[in-house]
Parts: sequence; C-alpha cells; structure tokens
Amino acid sequence: MKFSCNQQILSKALNTVSKAVSSRTTIPILKGILLEASSDGNLKLAASDLDLSIEKTVAVNVLEEGSIVVSAKLFIDIIRKLPNEEVEVEESEGSVTIRCLASEFTIVGQPADEFPNIGEIKEETGIRIDKEILKEMIRRTSYAASIEEAKGIIVGVLLEMDEEGMTMVALDGFRMAVTRESMENAQKMKIIIAARILNEVNRVFSEDENIKEVDMIIDEKKAVFLMEGARIVLRIMEGEFVKYKDILPKEYQSRLKVNRGEMIDCLERASLLAKEGKNNLVKLSIVRDKILISSRSEEGNVKEELFVEKEGNDLEIGFNAKYLLDALKVIDDEEVVMEFNTNVSPCLIKPLEGNRWYEYLILPVRISPKAF
Amino acid sequence: MKFSCNQQILSKALNTVSKAVSSRTTIPILKGILLEASSDGNLKLAASDLDLSIEKTVAVNVLEEGSIVVSAKLFIDIIRKLPNEEVEVEESEGSVTIRCLASEFTIVGQPADEFPNIGEIKEETGIRIDKEILKEMIRRTSYAASIEEAKGIIVGVLLEMDEEGMTMVALDGFRMAVTRESMENAQKMKIIIAARILNEVNRVFSEDENIKEVDMIIDEKKAVFLMEGARIVLRIMEGEFVKYKDILPKEYQSRLKVNRGEMIDCLERASLLAKEGKNNLVKLSIVRDKILISSRSEEGNVKEELFVEKEGNDLEIGFNAKYLLDALKVIDDEEVVMEFNTNVSPCLIKPLEGNRWYEYLILPVRISPKAF
Repeated sequence: MKFSCNQQILSKALNTVSKAVSSRTTIPILKGILLEASSDGNLKLAASDLDLSIEKTVAVNVLEEGSIVVSAKLFIDIIRKLPNEEVEVEESEGSVTIRCLASEFTIVGQPADEFPNIGEIKEETGIRIDKEILKEMIRRTSYAASIEEAKGIIVGVLLEMDEEGMTMVALDGFRMAVTRESMENAQKMKIIIAARILNEVNRVFSEDENIKEVDMIIDEKKAVFLMEGARIVLRIMEGEFVKYKDILPKEYQSRLKVNRGEMIDCLERASLLAKEGKNNLVKLSIVRDKILISSRSEEGNVKEELFVEKEGNDLEIGFNAKYLLDALKVIDDEEVVMEFNTNVSPCLIKPLEGNRWYEYLILPVRISPKAF
Repeated sequence: MKFSCNQQILSKALNTVSKAVSSRTTIPILKGILLEASSDGNLKLAASDLDLSIEKTVAVNVLEEGSIVVSAKLFIDIIRKLPNEEVEVEESEGSVTIRCLASEFTIVGQPADEFPNIGEIKEETGIRIDKEILKEMIRRTSYAASIEEAKGIIVGVLLEMDEEGMTMVALDGFRMAVTRESMENAQKMKIIIAARILNEVNRVFSEDENIKEVDMIIDEKKAVFLMEGARIVLRIMEGEFVKYKDILPKEYQSRLKVNRGEMIDCLERASLLAKEGKNNLVKLSIVRDKILISSRSEEGNVKEELFVEKEGNDLEIGFNAKYLLDALKVIDDEEVVMEFNTNVSPCLIKPLEGNRWYEYLILPVRISPKAF
C-alpha cells in the first residue's frame, strides 16, 4: 500500500474515525485504524469499538493498492504534528512509513485481515433525515439516559418512528426526556441505541456543516447512518424499552409559564448551597405569581424569587436541581411551561407552543420538614 | 460590616486574591477570604496560604465598618453567579448575607481576628520595576525550577540584583534557566522565592494591563510587590542557592544558529516516539550543516532533518526532548544559538544578540549504542 495526500485532508478524516476508537479495550486491533487504499483512488479509513464503527472515504493519490492497521493514537498524533504539506504513507513488510518534507516516521502495523468486519447491510428500510434535526433530537434526549452500564436497557435511547415522524426517548429512573419531530417518508420502526454511541455520532455530525442529510438504514442488529463519504454503523440494543407513554402525566394541578434563562440562573445559584449529600436538593415554593427557590446546607442558605404566570394551585415541592437544569439547558425556547400535580408526582416541562416538540419529566425529591 | 458595590468589581477583586487561597490546607481559616470594610469607603480583600498573601483594595459603598472571613470557594462562586448589578454584603452575628435583586444568600463567617497577619514591613529597600519585565523574567525561568518539594532550595527561583539590573535563575538538576535584564535604580540584593508562588504572582500581574509598574520591597523574611490597589507578600526561602555562574560553560566546540520554530516542530514530532521510559530520549546528530533528530520506541522510529548554520565540530548527543522544548518555548526570538562541547557536557541555548538576555543550560542524556 502506498498513497499520498494533503496533511489537512488526512488529519480531518482521521479525526472523524477516531471517535469510534475504543479507549478502554484490551484488544490491540481495536486501538487501531484501518487504512485501505484502492485502485479507484480512494482511501478508506475505519475504526470500530464493536458497538460503533466509523468508515470514512477520501480521495487520495493511490500509488499502490493495499491495506494495513496502524495504532490510532500514534498515527493521528503524527499526522496532526506534520506541516500542511503532501504526506506519503507507505506499507512495507508490515511496517508503515510516513514521509513529509524532511520528516520520516516508521511505525509498526497490524494485518488488515485481523480488523473486525464492520459488516455489510441489506440496504432496504432506508430513510433520509435532515442531519440537523437528528442531531438536535439526540442532544435533547441522550443526556437523560442512565450512565450506569449495569442498568441495562436504560443506557439506551429509544428511536421510534411511525408514518408521521420520529420520537426519541431516554430516561434513567429519575427523569425522562421525550422529543418528537415530524418527518416526510417516515416508516414504522423502533430501535434502541446506547446514548454513549449517539453522543459520538453527534460529534461526527457536527464536523461538516456542508452535509445536510443522513440516510438511516435499519438491519436486525445494526443501524447505519450514511453520509457523503462516511458510514457510521451502530449496534442496536436488544430488549424492550420502558412504556414511556404510560409515565407521562395526562393532567395537572398547577401550570406555570416560566422564563427559561431566569429559571436556570436561579437554580444554578441555589445549587451552590445544595451540594450536600450530592443530591442538589432545592425547594420550589409556588405561591401566587412567584416561585421561591430555596436551599440550605451546613454552610448557609439561599432564597431566590422568580415571577411566573400561574394557573392552578400553590405547591411546595423538592427537586434535584441538576435534573431541572439538565432539561432546561437543552431547550432553546425563551419561555417554557412547567406542569405539576402533587409534591410526590413528577414535574413536566414542555414548550408553550410551536412545532418543536419536547416533554421533560422530572421526579421530585421528598423534602423532610427538617431540611428547610 | 455592611457594604454594597457592583458585582463585576467585587468578582474581579475576588479573582485576584483567590490566587493566594490555599488549596491543600487543613486549616479552615486559610480557605477563607478576609473582607474588611473601612469608614474611608475602602473594602480590603485578603487571602493567604502563609507562603503567599494577596491583599486587594477596592472602593465600595461602606454602610457599616467591620470585618469577617468567608469561605473563599463559596463566596467567589456566589458573587460570580450573580447578575451584573449592585450587590449588598452584610455581616450580622457571625453570618454574612449577600443580596442582589431577588437573590439572598446567608453563609457562615469566621472571625476576622483568626485570619493570619499578612504582616507590616519596614518599607526601606524598595525598587520600582517595570511589571512586564518582571513577568517575562519569571516566565523565562520559573518553569526550570524543581517541582519536588523534597529537593529543597531548588524549588525556588533566585532573584539577584546588582547596581545594573536583575538576574533570575532556576534549575532542577537537569537544566538551568538564567535571565538578566538591566534596570535603573537597581540595588544589591539576593533572595530566593518558590517558583510555585512566582507563577501565582504572574497570574496576578497578567490581570490588569493598565498597571505598568511594581514596587518591590525586601524584608528579612518577606518580599512585597506593591501595585495600584494590591499588595502581594511572598515568603523568602532560607538557604544558599547553587553557584550558577560556575556551571555555565565558558567555551564551545560546536556552535549552531537554529530556527527556533522549526526546531520545536522537529522535536515535538520526534517526541511522539520518544515516550518510552518517560525520558523522551531523542538523539541529535550534528553533521555538516544539518541536525538529524531521531528517536525510536517499540512502536517505531522517526528521523527529522533541520538545516542550521554551523561553526565547529560534528557531534552526536542525546537529550530529554522535553527539556529542550521547555527552553525553546519560553524564548520569543525567531533564531537562537545552541552551543555544545562533548556528548556528556551540557548544551547552552542563548540569543543571537540583542538586549534580551537569557541562557538555558540542558544536560545531555547518555545514549547507549543499542538505543538507536
């Protein structure tokens, strides 16, 4: 294998595939990046941690076909540190030599046939999706998934599609995020993908603003996102997702219209004194047209006041401030609606109106009378 | 104690004194910031870790004289999170209440008389120094001091003044940095201050570009830097510094004129394969009008070539690339001179010419024939 190409182009392509390089693996080949130069003038770069695989194809000057696996970290560091000039990469007897101006590196390679097969897919149930919408939906939900691997299916995000659009749902037992977008050409399907993987995918989506669309193809065990020059393969999680519709409250006793930015500021300040026991406990006292937010710890106490538009009952309810903040921070709207029932039932945050549709459910924390 | 002032002004002053707050102490009062409001309309803020103390004075609206110590971390976080509006701070029965618009915090305080006395000084041997020069000299030397507290005096930087100017010296047994600037009104003196402290002082120096000058006052045990509105007190280390002049080589066998930026790039790339055993070993082969830089590890090897202007002998010599890089990176000149004697004697990096005067000495690493 031998090819040459501009350093910037190679470095950018490596940056994309690097997101699938396993950081924790003990299997040496998974710490590598596959380089595959074809006679059609294309260099394919690929990395995989088995759950997520990314393939990127760039046009290069192929001098000799072939393939090899190189250490991801070392190869990426070398290419990144080279000047913005033509770089030549040559495989010979299992070693890879990288030349650029007066620099010459030789690093050990691993045979390409040991690299995991990312897998072909029967490209049938594809659907074209606006990349920005997909990215937004992931951003608005994935944060709410559980980060404890032992929790099983709830480390995943549900992607559920019907004829009118797609819904994504994530939850961790304390809060739930639901978002929905209408889509043309949508097809009935339902898959679960680990939130960790979707976050990496979102980083790839953020790289090239010129790419506007993604083709999503679903297989039995894999989902594939196809973009110009790149293919992302994601493992589908097995199991049944929580019946999220049953959890969403159907009615409310109190309904507030809240300025989102002000609410974030008040909660962040209140959090400064809510670190104790690490549960970030804040009390919301909804009285007339105000929310009083308070918190206390051994170090002191804090009171915040926020004017709101209220409909319904007064209420006193405790929350982990972090869960409220996480939800409020992924919303872009200036104002949101917060709905409450009792002080032991969840709070629902949703939009005032409009096409962008989301529902954030947050469970309250029981407050002992002594705590405030 | 009661005062009010703009949030930004208070936050900025806190940022300055925070650099002297001890991060590792078990003494609660040293985790605090002293607030002292006087009838003359000044608020004095102070922090101290006993080695370094910083006092800042700002004009505020004093409603009631008094003083109290508050938790540095909590008070700074609270003030930082408040909006850019008038903030009122009031002490009452050992607690401190902070009010701003609809926010109200109450935090516990500690008695001001428990705060360490930063100490008055007999202001005699003062000298006015250009702040930028002082900052530059610290930057050009402090990195070379030892970071191992157990190494004693070499964790410090020597500040030596004679009638013509000031010299700063730092070393750690593997390299040495010497820099000198001529100064008017200089006076004979010699002190050693911990590099860690000087680095904090440099962060304070960087904060306000409008302040051009610093008055340095030396006491028996303390050095004081006086600036507009701020006083920095530094503990002077006891002991004799290494006789650095004896270490500086008087002659050379090889003398190179090197492009600093190119040398940095080559060394950084060579370092990628020099991590083994963490000693960053690179070999410099000075042959005719070139330096060949090479390195190898289990993962591969690298060769770099750099054209230089040479005077004297060819030479093959090994270095810890980090030590060369550290020195080259604090220099601003486009080109530098590197002087060598044998492959077991130190390399000296110095300027081509000009007023800015520095000498960086780096000990070589013995290279076994097997390593390359």
